[in-house]
Formats: sequence, structure tokens, C-alpha cells
Amino acid sequence: METRRDQFLEGMSRAACTVSVVTTDGAAGRAGVTVSAMASVSADAPGPCLLVCVHEKSAAAAAIAANGIFCVNVLGAGQSHVSDTFAGRIKTLDGDKFAPFDWGVMETGAPALDHALTVFDCRLKQVVEMGTHKVFFGDVVAVRNGATELPLIHVNRHYGAPAPLSL
Amino acid sequence: METRRDQFLEGMSRAACTVSVVTTDGAAGRAGVTVSAMASVSADAPGPCLLVCVHEKSAAAAAIAANGIFCVNVLGAGQSHVSDTFAGRIKTLDGDKFAPFDWGVMETGAPALDHALTVFDCRLKQVVEMGTHKVFFGDVVAVRNGATELPLIHVNRHYGAPAPLSL
Repeated sequence: METRRDQFLEGMSRAACTVSVVTTDGAAGRAGVTVSAMASVSADAPGPCLLVCVHEKSAAAAAIAANGIFCVNVLGAGQSHVSDTFAGRIKTLDGDKFAPFDWGVMETGAPALDHALTVFDCRLKQVVEMGTHKVFFGDVVAVRNGATELPLIHVNRHYGAPAPLSL
Repeated sequence: METRRDQFLEGMSRAACTVSVVTTDGAAGRAGVTVSAMASVSADAPGPCLLVCVHEKSAAAAAIAANGIFCVNVLGAGQSHVSDTFAGRIKTLDGDKFAPFDWGVMETGAPALDHALTVFDCRLKQVVEMGTHKVFFGDVVAVRNGATELPLIHVNRHYGAPAPLSL
């Protein structure tokens, strides 16, 4: 028998989402995790704001809360290996998920992925704990839009990329 | 000169999002609005939970807050006209956005769109006000997964649908 949880997960798998790697650094250490729940909240006063949902048991959730800063690195269609690495599906030699890729920093000091589709550099504004996840609201203090390309998306439990509507 | 707001909106336009129509009904009346910021929050205890971000000035935001219930109707790739209607881009004859489409109800009484890709029927759990938007957290009390098809997505200020990655 299909439970409401099963139905919910099936329903959410049908809704396409952009894939991002959320990173942080600071006194609590460097950490990063792949997330599919990222949303724009507000563009206007007091300033741009977004949210990301991170599993409460991930090392990244604790580090973001402690460091008070994070970067949302939105991945391009060619970066599924970055997603798989930060989701733990691709193992790195010494367990350092950051090592295979190139990073810089913007304003907050959180790692900004070179060649990300877009990077939103954020200061943590509010945390809402809800079930298994923490919802981090961030004030966006800097944005870096990379080369124009298509985003990596996840839908029906597979990676994909957007295509024009064929009506 | 490009402001941080411009950069933020450009960055968010690159991140593909699924398009949903959020509806409500009850003592405060029936209302609905197209949203692009919808995210899964938690599948597990105390039960499935999601969030949607709605502009605070929309009639739907006030009605959802007052009625305490809402449905998230995730649109399929063939339903851009539903999105345009509830976004106010297609005008309806008497201003009734619901009239051109067929609706039912599930548990809460909020309008559930026939032939939606997926419908999440929710009881309002918490509201977070952030800048211009209200973030509504909902306990998902019922789910209806329709025929399997692709979701309608919005990216780079255009509608689209997902396609497999061509690597």
C-alpha cells in the first residue's frame, strides 16, 4: 500500500528542480552539500533574499548555522559530477569533496564554485526547523552570474536540462 | 549600472523552477495565484511538509492566511495557459480565473485542478514574512499524482519542459 510519504516523494520527484551545492566556511569549518530545494523569496527591500532546505543531520547544516554564512552555487547542465560528489554518490580520494573542483570567495568567505551557473553569496538571516530539515533564509550580499548556459535540473529521479516547449 | 537586485533576478531566472498554481477556499473566499517558488521541506515525521512563497500583496496570500488551507497544483508541460491565467497574463471574461478550468476538492476543500501533474493538499502550519513575500509552510494531508507527464518549467524568462541530459 502506498503511504502518503510515498505519494509525497513521487509527487515531488515529478516537479523539476534546479540542483545547487550549498557551501560554508568559518570557525565551524568548511562544508558543502547538494540541495534540490532552493527558492527565491524576495528581490526587494530590505534586499534580495532566498532560502535553501538542508537535512538537519548533514554536516553542512550544523556548519551553516554556526558560521552564519553560505553560498548557493547553482549548477550548470554539465556539472552533474559536482552534484554527485557533494551528495556523496561519487567518493573522493581523501573524503574531501572540495578537492576535485576550483573555488574562490566573494564577500562572505563561503566557497564559490568556479564556473557555477550562478553563485548567491549569503548571510544567514533566519532558520526555520521543520521535520527533518532546516530551512535557511539568507540575505544575498553578492551575486556572480557565470557564462550563460542551461541549468542542471533533477526530475523523475534523473538529471536533465530544460528544453523549449514543443506545443 | 546593474544593481544587486538586477543580478539577483538574472541569477534566479537561470535556475529552472516548476510552475504551480496555489489555491485556497473558505471563509475568506476562493483565490489562486501562480508561483514559481515551491519546495519540498520534509518527507518524514511529523509528516510531509512543503513551502510556497507568495507575494504579500496578492489576494491569494491574504486568503491562504485566513483560510488556513491551500492546494499546490503542480502544472504539466501542456498547462502554460493555466499558469498565464493565474498570473494575470491571460484575462478571463468576468475576472474569474477558475472558470475556464475544471476543479475538485480533496481533504481540505481547497480547489484541486483536474489534470494537474500533482496536487498537494495542505493545512497551513507556519508563515514566515520575509521582504515582499510570505512563505507558507504546509502540512501535506493528501496527494494526488495524475497521469505521468513532464512538468511545466520556467527558465530564462520562458516556459520549457525537461529533456534528458545530452552529455
